[in-house]
Amino acid sequence: MSGPILALCGGIGGAKLALGLYHVLEPQQLIVAVNTGDDFEHLGLSISPDIDTVLYTLGGVADRERGWGRSEETWNFMTALRELGGEHWFQLGDRDLALHVERTRTLREGATLTMFVERVARALGIDAQILPMTDDRVRTMVNTDEGDLEFQRYFVERRCAPAVRALRFEGASQATPAAGLCRALSDPTLRAVVICPSNPYLSIDPILAVPGVRMLLAATTAPVIAVSPIIGGQAIKGPTVKIMAELGISATNESVAAHYRGLIDGLVIDDIDADSGEGAGLDVPVLATRTLMQDLADRTRLAEEVIAFAERLAAATSAPEPSHAVGI
Amino acid sequence: MSGPILALCGGIGGAKLALGLYHVLEPQQLIVAVNTGDDFEHLGLSISPDIDTVLYTLGGVADRERGWGRSEETWNFMTALRELGGEHWFQLGDRDLALHVERTRTLREGATLTMFVERVARALGIDAQILPMTDDRVRTMVNTDEGDLEFQRYFVERRCAPAVRALRFEGASQATPAAGLCRALSDPTLRAVVICPSNPYLSIDPILAVPGVRMLLAATTAPVIAVSPIIGGQAIKGPTVKIMAELGISATNESVAAHYRGLIDGLVIDDIDADSGEGAGLDVPVLATRTLMQDLADRTRLAEEVIAFAERLAAATSAPEPSHAVGI
Repeated sequence: MSGPILALCGGIGGAKLALGLYHVLEPQQLIVAVNTGDDFEHLGLSISPDIDTVLYTLGGVADRERGWGRSEETWNFMTALRELGGEHWFQLGDRDLALHVERTRTLREGATLTMFVERVARALGIDAQILPMTDDRVRTMVNTDEGDLEFQRYFVERRCAPAVRALRFEGASQATPAAGLCRALSDPTLRAVVICPSNPYLSIDPILAVPGVRMLLAATTAPVIAVSPIIGGQAIKGPTVKIMAELGISATNESVAAHYRGLIDGLVIDDIDADSGEGAGLDVPVLATRTLMQDLADRTRLAEEVIAFAERLAAATSAPEPSHAVGI
Repeated sequence: MSGPILALCGGIGGAKLALGLYHVLEPQQLIVAVNTGDDFEHLGLSISPDIDTVLYTLGGVADRERGWGRSEETWNFMTALRELGGEHWFQLGDRDLALHVERTRTLREGATLTMFVERVARALGIDAQILPMTDDRVRTMVNTDEGDLEFQRYFVERRCAPAVRALRFEGASQATPAAGLCRALSDPTLRAVVICPSNPYLSIDPILAVPGVRMLLAATTAPVIAVSPIIGGQAIKGPTVKIMAELGISATNESVAAHYRGLIDGLVIDDIDADSGEGAGLDVPVLATRTLMQDLADRTRLAEEVIAFAERLAAATSAPEPSHAVGI
């Protein structure tokens, strides 16, 4: 069981489990494929919020209080930008800005996002492989009761206030998955795929919308485990529950299991929901544990349990039936 | 005598006198045309060092100790950029960066540098008119004993160490002067042109190299006064004297007068040089005063003296000859 583990994730919530996996595994065994549907161009800069959260989190420079951006951050760029009358609805810290300026320059010079992320990961001393889901342009558009909004306009500028009617991932159908993502999903030694407790609709669906990913995920022999972002009908952070309600979906683990049906071999839910009997109705193997990750110990424990769960599922699947054993 | 005064300048040294003029004049009477030969693209950003020094100086946000950039500056962007392995030979402060990011975005969207500078001047509460010498691309190239160097590479990265053989202003011959500069130089009410004590070769020559500027300057009826950047064979700041030596020019006011011959109607030199008899050999009217500007009082006093000198020269020129007076 020394093959790689592939994690699919968005930003903050998903990055927590990715960090747990990073601590539990040999770093080189971890591959994290990250949503880029949230990426956008702002002030002429190319910004990749989810990628950056994963980089900062695994690089040990993420801000813990705020949940996004860098620790020991200052905001003098924003102050000066406001003085100049610049657009200031999206907060860019002074340290954080280095990443955006370098990314913009590098992409403009012809590098891929994969190449840039690899370079930054190395600079931050990260030994795991962090991959954008694609090097092509995919942009999550939020159709709301106020019309179409680019994701960051909806998420940051409007603080998720407009009611969501539908989500679409512009450019996804023309995109190619990152080479490393295809490689990982096709790797016969792949040990498990972990769908992190990110927003299924905003953070995981864009990854699944890149042609080939869903099929490769369904076809992989490795167990695919999703960790539900729902605990007791609530999401830890972000608009997951609000969006589910607006889309007419009940905020339950059943909904999450149904959303990932055909893709996952197991679902990890919180003890709270298991205790209230929610897990019983699920048509997929379930691991009930504490999924709330408040500190590093929570992250590593959950990571360990997810891996052990995946290994149990893999053993159950690959264990030869007695008749076969006799037959051989 | 209520017409405008046009100042030509580069960065730090010239901006000091521009600030003096700004305090002495009604702000709307001052037009400052600034060298853009030092402009460059760095990290994908459009940077205009001389323009920015003038903006920060007149806007009251320039750093006094350092002489360039903004006051209350922080450097976290640079720290983070170094961590990422980015190019860090050119220091960009966190506050300063807002100007470069906004300029880059604005120019890319099709605005002219003139439009951008006007907007920033307004945002910083500057009532004077600050103009780039041109909206076209002009780049000062320094031919040195180590080959051609872009100006900022020579000036900042190499700290003026290579010996200068020649200077050229790439793009200048195809450039058009800023509309405001042509308008000012053609304005019959123009009260004076002040060539600030900037480096004549690096800061003023690029302005004069834009087709039309030299001719308009020679043709204007307003007195043209240069303030020599040389005091006792030394320059206050920067590589003026070193460059003059490398170009085989002696670091004297005679050299400055010769350089501006045909353009200027008066030269302002320092008392030190007047006392040592240097002024006597000059073939242009001379004002000797203290040209060293250490504080705001120095700047305003010098500005007042330069204006008074210009007015005396204008009066002397326009005073009708007795025969004419009789004739009329």
